[in-house]
Amino acid sequence: MKAVVLLSGGLDSSTVLYQAQAEGCDSYAISFDYQQRHRRELEAATAIAQAAGVIAHQVVTFDLRQWGGSALTDHAIDLPEGRSLSEMSASIPVTYVPARNTIFLSFALAYAETIGAERVYIGVNALDYSGYPDCRPDYIQAMQEVFRLGTKQGREGDAIAIITPLLHLKKTEIIQLGDHLGVPWHLTWSCYAGEKLACGVCDSCRLRRAAFVELGLSDPLPYADNGQESQP
Amino acid sequence: MKAVVLLSGGLDSSTVLYQAQAEGCDSYAISFDYQQRHRRELEAATAIAQAAGVIAHQVVTFDLRQWGGSALTDHAIDLPEGRSLSEMSASIPVTYVPARNTIFLSFALAYAETIGAERVYIGVNALDYSGYPDCRPDYIQAMQEVFRLGTKQGREGDAIAIITPLLHLKKTEIIQLGDHLGVPWHLTWSCYAGEKLACGVCDSCRLRRAAFVELGLSDPLPYADNGQESQP
Repeated sequence: MKAVVLLSGGLDSSTVLYQAQAEGCDSYAISFDYQQRHRRELEAATAIAQAAGVIAHQVVTFDLRQWGGSALTDHAIDLPEGRSLSEMSASIPVTYVPARNTIFLSFALAYAETIGAERVYIGVNALDYSGYPDCRPDYIQAMQEVFRLGTKQGREGDAIAIITPLLHLKKTEIIQLGDHLGVPWHLTWSCYAGEKLACGVCDSCRLRRAAFVELGLSDPLPYADNGQESQP
Repeated sequence: MKAVVLLSGGLDSSTVLYQAQAEGCDSYAISFDYQQRHRRELEAATAIAQAAGVIAHQVVTFDLRQWGGSALTDHAIDLPEGRSLSEMSASIPVTYVPARNTIFLSFALAYAETIGAERVYIGVNALDYSGYPDCRPDYIQAMQEVFRLGTKQGREGDAIAIITPLLHLKKTEIIQLGDHLGVPWHLTWSCYAGEKLACGVCDSCRLRRAAFVELGLSDPLPYADNGQESQP
């Protein structure tokens, strides 16, 4: 079975790709260069796609800086640093990119219909503290209706299915799953700052590190603070 | 009230832009350069946006040729020519671009949320013979749910509304509406072929010409066959 897998190069999407492969899918990865601050994640996506042995890897390019609206697409907006998990979950953060998953899933749908894929995998997670509206189950259901009604495939046959293996997992459970699947964590990238070393203090780094620490596992990524940051 | 208006540069979207203006909206036009065969339509979009006096006009650029799947994005697929309206309505044509309106509406949603717009206007039409699945009322309803559930704005307040003034109009009624609103037809562009003159024989040209002929109006566009084509 053919599957399109959204791959950012982070922990979650890399785990999803390995899960799709484990389920026997022929995987077609799709990544997005939207001029995000951390475009560096695309190198990770390419390395993970290669390591996983995908059939093809598409990188779709557009520029969300043209209207900005997020700390990830407008450098004038500072990234939050050093926040606790409870601070992260208090409200939708400035790293929210309006309609990002809707844009990503739309392109994935276009690609999937074109190549005749039956599934689109996405690593959204409703519990990861980000508070992003486009990571919640009711949103995914709404997109599934769009997949059904907005395509020739969905009108004339079975709709392409959105598969969300991580939707209800905690970050620690995602890492356990990825470990079990053999995800090469050293090739992944999570940091929003987009520097040569992971900053260790943005929300994404702190969420990742907290989960590795909780599991008693070592995170192989090089951090700018050399692992000296106090635990979140 | 701020509104984002999807503007291809054709009859329909131009009429919708003038309708949004007539309803008192401050209009922000958005167009897409997806390397479509008829990218020439973007010149029309720019001219129409200027004529209508929009606040801003965004052109979002990406490349759907990277997977093709449509006669509009893959030059190896021939455009249908000389088809009657009943032939056009018999099935979804090869000019169908998988998930195109979903991609367009996703970007429009992102732009609208970023600038604080309350509405997104789109010139979809369920009766225009194209048979495109992503022009039908149930599809628009599904996207409206995505607008509600997939954004901060929709979660915390009123969802951005998708407005479809042409959904149930015939092509002739659209032209009558546009005439009433003063749409400068000579600035619009409909032809799929993307040459210097409109081909006159692609589905889009034939649909347009048939409507002008039925209304007894003259279409100001220069056609390659100099208006000599037999009536559809």
